[in-house]
Amino acid sequence: MSVAGKALPPGSVIGILGGGQLGRMLALAAGQLGLKCHIFAPEADSPAFHVAAAHTVAGYRDEAALAAFAASVDAVTYEFENVPVEAVRFLEARLPVRPGAKALEVAQDRLKEKALARQLGAATAEFAPVNSLTDLQAAVAAIGTPAILKTTRFGYDGKGQARINGAADVEAAWAIMKGQPSILESFVRFEREVSVIAARGLDGRMAAFEVTENVHRNHVLHTSTVPSQVSQELAAEAVFIAQRFLETLDYVGVMGVEFFVGEDVIYVNEIAPRVHNSGHWTQDACSVSQFEQHIRAVAGWPLGATLRHSDVVMTNLLGDDILAWETLVREPGLALHHYGKTEARPGRKMGHVNRLRSRG
Amino acid sequence: MSVAGKALPPGSVIGILGGGQLGRMLALAAGQLGLKCHIFAPEADSPAFHVAAAHTVAGYRDEAALAAFAASVDAVTYEFENVPVEAVRFLEARLPVRPGAKALEVAQDRLKEKALARQLGAATAEFAPVNSLTDLQAAVAAIGTPAILKTTRFGYDGKGQARINGAADVEAAWAIMKGQPSILESFVRFEREVSVIAARGLDGRMAAFEVTENVHRNHVLHTSTVPSQVSQELAAEAVFIAQRFLETLDYVGVMGVEFFVGEDVIYVNEIAPRVHNSGHWTQDACSVSQFEQHIRAVAGWPLGATLRHSDVVMTNLLGDDILAWETLVREPGLALHHYGKTEARPGRKMGHVNRLRSRG
Repeated sequence: MSVAGKALPPGSVIGILGGGQLGRMLALAAGQLGLKCHIFAPEADSPAFHVAAAHTVAGYRDEAALAAFAASVDAVTYEFENVPVEAVRFLEARLPVRPGAKALEVAQDRLKEKALARQLGAATAEFAPVNSLTDLQAAVAAIGTPAILKTTRFGYDGKGQARINGAADVEAAWAIMKGQPSILESFVRFEREVSVIAARGLDGRMAAFEVTENVHRNHVLHTSTVPSQVSQELAAEAVFIAQRFLETLDYVGVMGVEFFVGEDVIYVNEIAPRVHNSGHWTQDACSVSQFEQHIRAVAGWPLGATLRHSDVVMTNLLGDDILAWETLVREPGLALHHYGKTEARPGRKMGHVNRLRSRG
Repeated sequence: MSVAGKALPPGSVIGILGGGQLGRMLALAAGQLGLKCHIFAPEADSPAFHVAAAHTVAGYRDEAALAAFAASVDAVTYEFENVPVEAVRFLEARLPVRPGAKALEVAQDRLKEKALARQLGAATAEFAPVNSLTDLQAAVAAIGTPAILKTTRFGYDGKGQARINGAADVEAAWAIMKGQPSILESFVRFEREVSVIAARGLDGRMAAFEVTENVHRNHVLHTSTVPSQVSQELAAEAVFIAQRFLETLDYVGVMGVEFFVGEDVIYVNEIAPRVHNSGHWTQDACSVSQFEQHIRAVAGWPLGATLRHSDVVMTNLLGDDILAWETLVREPGLALHHYGKTEARPGRKMGHVNRLRSRG
C-alpha cells in the first residue's frame, strides 16, 4: 500500500522521542536541513537536548506532557524501540508518527519479529516461545543445543540473554529471564554478520545503503566495515528482505536489519525500527547519512541517494575508550563523533569514529 | 610566537558571537565533537539558536550581558567580523577569545588589511586612503581608472562600494560613502578568483584546505569549485601568504583569504577572520570541515587533516533560490545545507548545496 502526503518545509518541527546519541545525531542532521527538533525524554541530562531547539523532560506515560509535545511539533519519530507503544498510539491519534506503532510492536517482540521474517520468506534461527521452565525443557529438546534464551521484549546489546550449551544450563538460564515471556533460538552457524540500513519514504519509494559487515564484542557492535565481504547475491537478498519488511509494515523512515551470513544462506537476526549503530559510517562516507535519510522520510521529503564515496570502517567507543579522543582526532581521515555524555560508565556507548579510505 | 594551552574537553561550552548561518554551522560541528555552544546575538530569531544548548539575545555593547555570557562559557569565538572590537576586548579580559581582537581590528579596516598584506610581501591592488572629495580626486589622479572606492570598515558582499570609471564618477562615488573613511583601490586585472581556508591551532601548527576557485555574481559568492584551475605554484603561494597572516596575527582559528589571480601574480583581495563561505565545500568533501577545524582550534584541540575525498562544487542559494529545495534534494550526490531562516529576502544567503563527484 502506498502512502501520500505533503513534505514539511524547512522551519517545521520534528519531535523525537528519546534523547540519546541517536536522537542527538538525528537533531544534527535535521539542523543541516533547516528543520527544528523538539526532544522528549525522561532523563534531564539527555545528550540530544544540547543540539535541539526545544526539549521536554517527562515520562513516556505522562499524557499531559505528550499532548503538549504533540501540539508543539509537526511530526514525531522515535530514536529507540523501547518507547511504550501506548505513547506512540497516543501521539498517532494527534499527528503523524513515522515509523508508527505497527513497526514498533513487531520490533519490541522477538517472537513477532521472527514470525514476520518467516512470513516474508526469510530464513531465521529455529525458535520457540518459552513461558515456563517446562516450556524451556521442551524447547531445548526440540531445537537442541547450543541455543540462546532471550526475553521476547526490551532486550538489546546482549541484555536479557542466556546461552544454553546443554541440559545442565536450563534452570540457570530460565532464572535469568526472571519469569518474563521468552524465546529460545537455535544457535545459527555463521561466517559473518551483516546489516542493511534501508529506508522507505512517505511516497513508498525505498532506498538501501550498501550492506555493512559488523563485528560484535560482548554482544555490542564493535566495528562496521564497508565494503563487506559478502557475495553480491547474498547482499542483494539482504536488501530484498529489508524492503519486504518496509513494505509489509507500511513503514516510513530508516530501518536497520541485522543478518547472520552462513555458507549459502542469510538469516534475519533482528530488526530495529530506527537509525542503527551499524549505519553510522554513512555520516562520513555518503552525501546523505542514515540520519538525514530518516529525517527526510519523517518530514515527508524525497529520500536521498545512498551513494558512497569512500571505503570506511566505523569503530564504537565504549566507556573509557572515549578518553582517547585527543589522540584519535590527530589521525588523518578520521572523523570523531562524540555524544556529549557526561559519565563514561563501562560499556556505555560514548562515541564512534569513522575512518575513511578513498576508493580505488 | 607560539602559543600553548590545554584542550577544552568535550562537554565544555564554546561561546559564539553572532547567530547567523556561520554560527549555526559552527554549532552543528561542535555538536558532533561533544562540545556545547552558547550563542550571543542581538536578533531574537537567530538561526544558530535552534541548534545550540543556550543562547543570549543582547546587543554587543551590553556589558552586563557580555559578562554573564563570559561566565557561562569556556572560550569564545565570533562568526562575523563586524562584531565591535570593544566587545571582544571586554571578553578577552575574562577568558580566551579565539581569534582575538588583533585579527578583528585588521579585518575591519581595509587600509590596515592591505598594509599588512604588503608588509607580508604579498601583492595587492594599488590603494590610497580617502577621507574627503579632495583626497579622492588626488587618489584617482595617482591610481588611475577604473578604480573602486570602498568604505574602510563594515563593508561586505559589495556593500559600501562604488566603481569609478573616470573623473565624471568621482563626486557620485564619494557621495555613496556618506563621509565615511574610505579607500580607493586600483582595478586589478584578474583571470580568476581563488581563496584559501587556512587554520592555526593553539599549538601554532597550521593547516590549509586546498585552494578553491570562486565565482561571484553581483559581488556575492555564487560558486566555489575544487579542484581549482590555478597553477600549483600560485596555489602554493596563496597558502604561504595565508600562513604568514596567521602567524603574524598570532591567530587561533580558521581564516579565509581571498585572492585575485592574474597571469603570473596573485593579489590579496581581503581576509576574513572566521569560517568563510568559500570553505563550505569542506563540509561534504573532507572528513574534517572548516567548521570542525575552527571549533578544534577554538577549543585548543589539534587541527584536523585537510584531506579531500571528492571533487566538489558549492553553490549558494540566495533569496528565492531556496524555494527549489524540494527539487534539489532529489539530486544524487547533492548535499543541501538550509540555514533555517524564516524570510527569503532578495539576495539573502538562505542555504547552499555541495555537489560531489568521486575522484578519479
